[in-house]
Amino acid sequence: MTSVTAFAPATVSNVACGFDVLGFALHEPGDTVTARWAPSGVHIEGIDGDHGRLPRDAAKNTAGVAVMALLKALGETRGISLHITKGLPLSSGLGGSAASAAAAVVAVDALLNARSSQEQLITYAYEGERLGAGSAHADNIAPCICGGFVLVRRASPPDIVRLPVPRGLTAVVIHPELEIETAKARALLGTTVALSDAVKQWANLGALIHSLHTNDFALMSRSLEDTIAEPRRAPLVPGLAHIKQAAADAGALGSSLSGSGPALFALCAGQASADRVAEAMTRAVRAHIGGEPQTYVAQVAEQGARVIAS
Amino acid sequence: MTSVTAFAPATVSNVACGFDVLGFALHEPGDTVTARWAPSGVHIEGIDGDHGRLPRDAAKNTAGVAVMALLKALGETRGISLHITKGLPLSSGLGGSAASAAAAVVAVDALLNARSSQEQLITYAYEGERLGAGSAHADNIAPCICGGFVLVRRASPPDIVRLPVPRGLTAVVIHPELEIETAKARALLGTTVALSDAVKQWANLGALIHSLHTNDFALMSRSLEDTIAEPRRAPLVPGLAHIKQAAADAGALGSSLSGSGPALFALCAGQASADRVAEAMTRAVRAHIGGEPQTYVAQVAEQGARVIAS
Repeated sequence: MTSVTAFAPATVSNVACGFDVLGFALHEPGDTVTARWAPSGVHIEGIDGDHGRLPRDAAKNTAGVAVMALLKALGETRGISLHITKGLPLSSGLGGSAASAAAAVVAVDALLNARSSQEQLITYAYEGERLGAGSAHADNIAPCICGGFVLVRRASPPDIVRLPVPRGLTAVVIHPELEIETAKARALLGTTVALSDAVKQWANLGALIHSLHTNDFALMSRSLEDTIAEPRRAPLVPGLAHIKQAAADAGALGSSLSGSGPALFALCAGQASADRVAEAMTRAVRAHIGGEPQTYVAQVAEQGARVIAS
Repeated sequence: MTSVTAFAPATVSNVACGFDVLGFALHEPGDTVTARWAPSGVHIEGIDGDHGRLPRDAAKNTAGVAVMALLKALGETRGISLHITKGLPLSSGLGGSAASAAAAVVAVDALLNARSSQEQLITYAYEGERLGAGSAHADNIAPCICGGFVLVRRASPPDIVRLPVPRGLTAVVIHPELEIETAKARALLGTTVALSDAVKQWANLGALIHSLHTNDFALMSRSLEDTIAEPRRAPLVPGLAHIKQAAADAGALGSSLSGSGPALFALCAGQASADRVAEAMTRAVRAHIGGEPQTYVAQVAEQGARVIAS
């Protein structure tokens, strides 16, 4: 094999009550990375779709750092050249840095025929994600690699719980014309929380996990509440409460920021409901934020990052 | 009917990673309450097994207050007299006040033939429990009424999630000769927690809920960790770390304080394992705390508070 191309999907992390530990993968959109042999070292050969904004220095690029971690772990001394095609907007809250890192390690793993486990791939991609996010969490990387709905019990070394996904569970993701730096959104959180808020959060997370096992959409709806991050980050997204209300009025089970925003997600029972919710949220985003948002309606993807050409 | 007697079991609340939201019921021991008609009002006719320490004034007694809440909700003007037999030690962390309240409301509900739902019974008993615990939570009351393993998504009005219990899951509960006032143990917690500790707690709770659905004892074992309450309350129980280590060495899936302690619980895969763990914990408690602890080995009870004679 002389080259391998892999695709890795957008992911929604936090998922209302699962700050830093819960995420799910979407069918689309996503990033694509092609890996080729090079004489030595790791190189970023080119990046499409980033308007020149991402680092071309592999040591400063999430995909480059992830591949370096993989090569080091495998004792591989040959070099790799990467071409990255960004399908995900930058700083959107849709797990763009995770997707580039995940697609890169999946492509390189296939090029080396290394057959690493998903946990190993997460470990490598996590090194890249740490660079991008400025802190240690894996709730984008893990669903991006594994697909589906994933709970990260521990990021490093990874302890990953693959959760069941109820039939028909459909996501709406909407990306307003706003940018939020992950590091800035995180700084808003502070380092302590009220115990009473934390108790509500873990009660909701426990109930959400149960609802995924039992297809209990009513319980899922009651559980999709964020008492920790969303209240602190709300000022970053004008009209957030109105947009969430529009989603609820249109029948969404729940909605919140995707990752640290500015993208929002809603979870819906079925495609028809999701279509209505997408329309209502798009209208609300236009009214409160302005500009033209990108809106996606997608099933929770069963499959995560994968080889699409070699 | 002239009298009804109900039994309500001991409960383990918090369950390591489920502070204020998770609990399970034991087959035994428990409290027993007999309810009889009285001309008017609610009266505590007598209490056995408390060495005279519990209030005989119904308005200050958890069972009395719970029954008052029930009578008020049902618009019942006849009076009730209660006789309470404490099978649970006071201030033990085994849900004694919840058990008295639960047995009382179940007995009176049957005497009135009111057929209240479990959620209604929880609402009434919760009024009594608030009096006893000095704060609002329902992770003893809910499993005490419902049996099994229960997640309290919200205490009031109750939103109760009945969780599956893996076959063979067996609890060891050990009550050292120590007393801890619930209110004092709670004061040790403070009102804020580190966000990083809270994230670990909800990651563990999510994983624990998943493990109950999938019979994954290995994941359950990794999840039975308390980053919030146990570290702060550890000074109340001499040698806690050693006792927990003894449980782990003997094969326990995990152990922690039961409620706010001083009782400890361990969860084990099967009766034989639980018997070994009980022996090891008993030895460790004797060595580090002294005195003669009460040790129970019991399945997680499928049934909660119930009428045993009428």
